[in-house]
Amino acid sequence: MQNKVTPRILPGFMELLPEEQILFNRIKDEIKNVYESFGFLPLDTPVIEYSEVLLAKAGGETEKQIYRFSKGDNDLALRFDLTVPLARYAAQRYNDLTFPFKRYQISKVYRGERPQKGRFREFYQCDIDIIGNESLDIIYDAEIPAVIYNIFKRLKLGDFTVRLNNRKILGGFFEYTGLSEKTADVLRIIDKIEKIGSENVKEELVKLCTEKQAESIMEFVSVSGTNAEKLECLKSMGVENHMFTEGVSELEEVLGYIKMLGCDEENFRIDLTIARGLDYYTGTVYETFLNDYSSLGSVCSGGRYESLAEYYTKRRLPGVGVSIGLTRLFYQLREMDIIKPDSKTVARALILPMDKSCSKYALSVAGLLRSQDIPTDIYHENKGMKQKMKYADRTGVPYVVIIGEDEVKTGMVMVKNMKNGSQKAAKPEELALIIKGDN
Amino acid sequence: MQNKVTPRILPGFMELLPEEQILFNRIKDEIKNVYESFGFLPLDTPVIEYSEVLLAKAGGETEKQIYRFSKGDNDLALRFDLTVPLARYAAQRYNDLTFPFKRYQISKVYRGERPQKGRFREFYQCDIDIIGNESLDIIYDAEIPAVIYNIFKRLKLGDFTVRLNNRKILGGFFEYTGLSEKTADVLRIIDKIEKIGSENVKEELVKLCTEKQAESIMEFVSVSGTNAEKLECLKSMGVENHMFTEGVSELEEVLGYIKMLGCDEENFRIDLTIARGLDYYTGTVYETFLNDYSSLGSVCSGGRYESLAEYYTKRRLPGVGVSIGLTRLFYQLREMDIIKPDSKTVARALILPMDKSCSKYALSVAGLLRSQDIPTDIYHENKGMKQKMKYADRTGVPYVVIIGEDEVKTGMVMVKNMKNGSQKAAKPEELALIIKGDN
Repeated sequence: MQNKVTPRILPGFMELLPEEQILFNRIKDEIKNVYESFGFLPLDTPVIEYSEVLLAKAGGETEKQIYRFSKGDNDLALRFDLTVPLARYAAQRYNDLTFPFKRYQISKVYRGERPQKGRFREFYQCDIDIIGNESLDIIYDAEIPAVIYNIFKRLKLGDFTVRLNNRKILGGFFEYTGLSEKTADVLRIIDKIEKIGSENVKEELVKLCTEKQAESIMEFVSVSGTNAEKLECLKSMGVENHMFTEGVSELEEVLGYIKMLGCDEENFRIDLTIARGLDYYTGTVYETFLNDYSSLGSVCSGGRYESLAEYYTKRRLPGVGVSIGLTRLFYQLREMDIIKPDSKTVARALILPMDKSCSKYALSVAGLLRSQDIPTDIYHENKGMKQKMKYADRTGVPYVVIIGEDEVKTGMVMVKNMKNGSQKAAKPEELALIIKGDN
Repeated sequence: MQNKVTPRILPGFMELLPEEQILFNRIKDEIKNVYESFGFLPLDTPVIEYSEVLLAKAGGETEKQIYRFSKGDNDLALRFDLTVPLARYAAQRYNDLTFPFKRYQISKVYRGERPQKGRFREFYQCDIDIIGNESLDIIYDAEIPAVIYNIFKRLKLGDFTVRLNNRKILGGFFEYTGLSEKTADVLRIIDKIEKIGSENVKEELVKLCTEKQAESIMEFVSVSGTNAEKLECLKSMGVENHMFTEGVSELEEVLGYIKMLGCDEENFRIDLTIARGLDYYTGTVYETFLNDYSSLGSVCSGGRYESLAEYYTKRRLPGVGVSIGLTRLFYQLREMDIIKPDSKTVARALILPMDKSCSKYALSVAGLLRSQDIPTDIYHENKGMKQKMKYADRTGVPYVVIIGEDEVKTGMVMVKNMKNGSQKAAKPEELALIIKGDN
């Protein structure tokens, strides 16, 4: 036989063992369920697209990182995010869609970066966006953080904070202070305040503007107190600028709607330093932090944009959305031991026939359990009972059903609760109730 | 503004509108749920792998069809099936896995074929396999068709038949008739019996062997009657060959176990003409047909193989598995109008606030419903009530909750059952019960 090829995968690709995959899928499903509970529709775009289409907007870093290749006469590329495919889809299927179009997509994207710890070349993004036709009510800006709230409540990763801001407040303020031409630069600097601290931010600012302007920026980003106090403070600053006023009133409205959506206000905080790197956000912006693990940075970010698909269509398609980088988040949560796999099996019951003569009866018990919606595995290998129980133990299955000659004769089974070790005889028809009732 | 790029995707890639995607996902979830109900573990391998690894075994057609490209110094390719990645995974993670290793993977694979109607370059495969360590009990050969049985029962695509055979019966028979060196050729010919008919098969056979041999082959493949009668017939043919006898007894055993697993025997039929194209099947083989739509061909095929990962490891990893080509199946079922989307929404309830003044109350009702596990959408656009109801109608949502000034005042809602048109006032707390109870 020929030489063997060493089985291996590329660095920067996450491939999990079953127990880790079960945990990963559980989180992925939670996210999906919350997305659907808000009426977001599923979308599944191709991994491969025309380079011309995928790169209509991109440039710089994106082009360098993209997986791009030819096949026949076609110049192709793998998607590097889920926003560009959404823009292409919304423009292409415009006539078939009902707006506002609310879609979610949970899919892998590809970036050929240099691999390093915690960076991935293939990773899941979990995106939601709400796309309007020409306009989109501000109320949807509250729906997005309400979705985030529900997800992180369910994931039980401890306390979390959704930080909100509105780009119009920033833009208007800079216009008022005569800094609007430097808005992008100033935004980039104050976005770093958490990382480098106020002093360094101010130091960078004075390179750009007058001392007085820098001071007034620092005063602005230091507005503090509760959300209501911050809003009051902003209103009483005397900034006479339309954009600014609009931004403050949008932020106030969004916070009001969030409360009406049943979210606890504790989890939402106005943060005037948030600008978001991407240039295309124009209104509300969000970042989400796990309070006990702030070193993770924002685990879920997004915001409102004026125009989703301008590279593909003349129509104005404003939207608001957010993305969870699930692969990276999962990796970090595992690294820090914040989450742990608790089972090597998706089965609720494992059936152990003591020997071959019990197989047929064991199969019929398995069929019965499955028909009653109990995921059931069965172990047929020719091993001793001790080894079989060891196997059961290792899988972490909650119930083991033992079937020996006696059980076959009497039409009973022996069921063992693996959590507390208790064991009792039961009729096959009683099993589902025992396992579902967890008693 | 610059010229627009035409939004479009490559031919041979399936991208669905929301109502089609909802239907597609429902089928995908059914398959997943049945896989998990038998205790199969999830696996999610990378789309991109080293070409050397993916092509360790392949050649010919596969190499031509594969998407292969370089990135940096690496020669990469997109997976063209889920079996090769499983083989690589099982060899690579051998020490971390518990055998028998039962895994499912529902993922997209890539083949750059010339696109034609019903052929896809990107398509979902839904695979299950059970991998043993050195050996694997024959009983698992029955578990696989029991899984298929449960899937097609749930999918409600009408009557279906899982056809079974055992390659040892064929191999043994040909050995006995002195044709073993031509086994591969003979198998390839008789595999076509459904397509080209017995006469043409015989015609092709006599080019390979004596008239007498051809006749005995034709006699063999014409064995008829019930499964039990076919087995009897095979046993009484007087074929003195060990492999043959083993194959017959395996087939009999598998059919017995299938019955014990609670499957209806009506849905299983011995078919001695099934050989399966792939060379690596060595025992039980399966194909599945929808009885009312036999033109679709086999919608789910697989079988038993001796050695999964011989290109990566010296260990013998025998297994048994099947694959459903979901994208193609979905396409065919839709083309023939066998399945139809019934909803443009994943929501069970759609809330329509009559105007902006009702928004906050409407949001709190939405929050309440979602907290009671009712997926709920809400329409905030500033449109007239007639247009709002039209929107509701188009989505196919089962319940509409109308909230106007009166409802806000009285703390009630108006709920409309869209199926029967009935409408009634209710308290928000009663809504979940009405919607869940579907009354």
